[in-house]
Amino acid sequence: MPHLSPKQAEIIAIGSELLTPERVDTNSLIVTRHLNLLGVEVAAKHVIGDDRVRLIEAIRAALERSDILILIGGLGPTEDDVTRDAVAVALGRKLTLSLQQESILLEKFRQFNRAMAKNNLRQAYLIEGAEALPNPRGSAPGQFLSTGRGAVALLPGPPRELEPMVENELVPRLKPVLPPQVIRVRSFRITGIGESDLDTLIAPVYTKYTNPMTTVLSSPGDLWVHLRAQSDSEAEADALLREVGNPIVELLGDRLYSERAGDTLDAVVARLLRQHHTTVATAESVTGGMVAARLTDTAGSSDYFVAGYVTYTDEQKHQILGVSEELLARHSAVSEPVAAAMAQAARTRSGATYGLSTTGYAGPAGGTEFDPVGTVYLGIAGPAAAKVIRVRYGSDRFRTRTLATQGALDLLRKSIGSLLMDFRTRPTP
Amino acid sequence: MPHLSPKQAEIIAIGSELLTPERVDTNSLIVTRHLNLLGVEVAAKHVIGDDRVRLIEAIRAALERSDILILIGGLGPTEDDVTRDAVAVALGRKLTLSLQQESILLEKFRQFNRAMAKNNLRQAYLIEGAEALPNPRGSAPGQFLSTGRGAVALLPGPPRELEPMVENELVPRLKPVLPPQVIRVRSFRITGIGESDLDTLIAPVYTKYTNPMTTVLSSPGDLWVHLRAQSDSEAEADALLREVGNPIVELLGDRLYSERAGDTLDAVVARLLRQHHTTVATAESVTGGMVAARLTDTAGSSDYFVAGYVTYTDEQKHQILGVSEELLARHSAVSEPVAAAMAQAARTRSGATYGLSTTGYAGPAGGTEFDPVGTVYLGIAGPAAAKVIRVRYGSDRFRTRTLATQGALDLLRKSIGSLLMDFRTRPTP
Repeated sequence: MPHLSPKQAEIIAIGSELLTPERVDTNSLIVTRHLNLLGVEVAAKHVIGDDRVRLIEAIRAALERSDILILIGGLGPTEDDVTRDAVAVALGRKLTLSLQQESILLEKFRQFNRAMAKNNLRQAYLIEGAEALPNPRGSAPGQFLSTGRGAVALLPGPPRELEPMVENELVPRLKPVLPPQVIRVRSFRITGIGESDLDTLIAPVYTKYTNPMTTVLSSPGDLWVHLRAQSDSEAEADALLREVGNPIVELLGDRLYSERAGDTLDAVVARLLRQHHTTVATAESVTGGMVAARLTDTAGSSDYFVAGYVTYTDEQKHQILGVSEELLARHSAVSEPVAAAMAQAARTRSGATYGLSTTGYAGPAGGTEFDPVGTVYLGIAGPAAAKVIRVRYGSDRFRTRTLATQGALDLLRKSIGSLLMDFRTRPTP
Repeated sequence: MPHLSPKQAEIIAIGSELLTPERVDTNSLIVTRHLNLLGVEVAAKHVIGDDRVRLIEAIRAALERSDILILIGGLGPTEDDVTRDAVAVALGRKLTLSLQQESILLEKFRQFNRAMAKNNLRQAYLIEGAEALPNPRGSAPGQFLSTGRGAVALLPGPPRELEPMVENELVPRLKPVLPPQVIRVRSFRITGIGESDLDTLIAPVYTKYTNPMTTVLSSPGDLWVHLRAQSDSEAEADALLREVGNPIVELLGDRLYSERAGDTLDAVVARLLRQHHTTVATAESVTGGMVAARLTDTAGSSDYFVAGYVTYTDEQKHQILGVSEELLARHSAVSEPVAAAMAQAARTRSGATYGLSTTGYAGPAGGTEFDPVGTVYLGIAGPAAAKVIRVRYGSDRFRTRTLATQGALDLLRKSIGSLLMDFRTRPTP
């Protein structure tokens, strides 16, 4: 078989149920994972209902654009199952009954101890030039065709039939038609910067390269930069990742909290607390328990999480944490001195190494001229010193609480093991 | 505007991250649900990477086949965000800076207290003839264009920006271009029963009807039954909803917590606490602050949420809540008496009407022969009595914590205003 150079694939999932508000195609994820490992990019995915005309058109269009086309589903025995027929029509090939597939099918039904309905015979039809892919877990065989430019595969929809067929039948048949190639990835997990500011910061580096390819993903307060290098040697792929990744690391500074793709800020903070044999307690107002919930999200969190106080009112800040009534009256609950006192109290009352506090206006009501809605004070008290930072998150309640929680965890991350001797630092009494 | 007869829609989700093995497009489900409610069927869905050329081609092809085209994502401020430009090119229309959108954008950044990076200005460009769709939760406006045959809409990718925009901006603009038809819906929000048990309970009622169409959606601890009746008169549609809905209400009993589609258990509990002029305090172990976080999720929660204690260790349960060391030693922290003592302490120490407690084994480690991993005790103490329930949730940490949080809120919901005179009830000391 000649070594073609297919690089791009498309996936079509077939089934009207995948076009309802309840169902989502996840089969394509299995196929994508295996294609990526072979160095093949998925350029587009489609979901088409059980509609022969639309499917024929979709197949034709995909084959004009892409080297490899994977079709998933629509291989059952009913009138609805149009995939075999649509591929044959789109390629201008015949669909003929395979006597070998017919006898395999009859044998399967004999084993299942079921009579074979006549429509099941549809599953024994192969597209001209196609190789049948055995399906030990179901009745419909897959099909594999090499085309001038690449390949077309028809795979069954049920995930437990699909997955082994991809691994055992599809991958070995695709390998010989692909150029040998290596894919290496590098990930950066980032917090403390907005998406567009991040892009302004690092785009001058990554836009100079198409290999590695750079992707930026974001959720509130959390960003992910992903580099993916393609090459014919591991050494070169790694060199490419260093060439682009290292300057990005420099630019990110301490906003980079992890280089592990699956990491979360919670997990990083948990690791740091363990490494330094330290513990934490929380005193939350504006975040209402969200910081404690994140800190206890990881198994074994009782090793480093000691206690949490959610003090929503002035009275509770005084009663539970011992923040002085005079301090509350003079500065109000949303203030630097009260955030400091809360962090300090969380630390001393629980005996934890660090006390972490949040107080602010989540909105929509509240706020002052100096501290409008969205203003949050985040406090930390440690063995050597205490520190408060003031942040303004904007006017959306959900966003403010989420970002303040992330901000508090990040303040803890940056403080663990340091002496907290920053600007705005005040000595621990 | 003329009454066209568009019936078929296509959805294109844009973003290279949606072509990786880790991410799946779920935004299209939100859009599909709303389109279906308008009587529009989704005929095909596509995922295209951040690839301008492929996207232009996909838009052109979709517009040849379908009446309505919805594009989701790719409206951000970076070079990667190609949707605006691709639609303009595909339609042969200009893309021009809207001074109004520019000033809205500047105002948003002013509110967020962030400097606007220059690339954000991309978000102020509108396609010729398009109407901007306001986005109160993000910076990128949506866009709506009516075409000769139907409509094209550009919507933002983040789900919390997308969902309100679909409901408040897209649906009202699509209605006038669709043939008139009455669709009426009825929703049931349910907790305290699993999805398959629920289906066993209510399927005998709803499977007799195809109109209304019944859908069951589930997330951990929370279920949604949705009836959709289609008719040419409101009266008939409503009669259909009564015919199927009323017997379902009977069967659900107090597991039905709301008939408002957009309601959450948090919001229902908040309304009940307000109505009865009552307050609550929490003492959490296994849920680590998640109950407090849910209770403070609603604006104005300081009216009814007094205080939260997260006591993760025996020592803290004793020190912070005053649970006796003897009780902890005799029964262990995960036990009915300790759950009761925690709830009682939360109530008395804070002065709240109700004290709500959680203690259990989230796993993966821990547990005893009698109380294996996944066992949780939920306690409530009220003016008249206290009550503890024991639940077993299974071995997944995330699931156990989520279900225990939901269970605690549901226990509170059922207790507010009642005298808590149930089995397992013990008198308040």
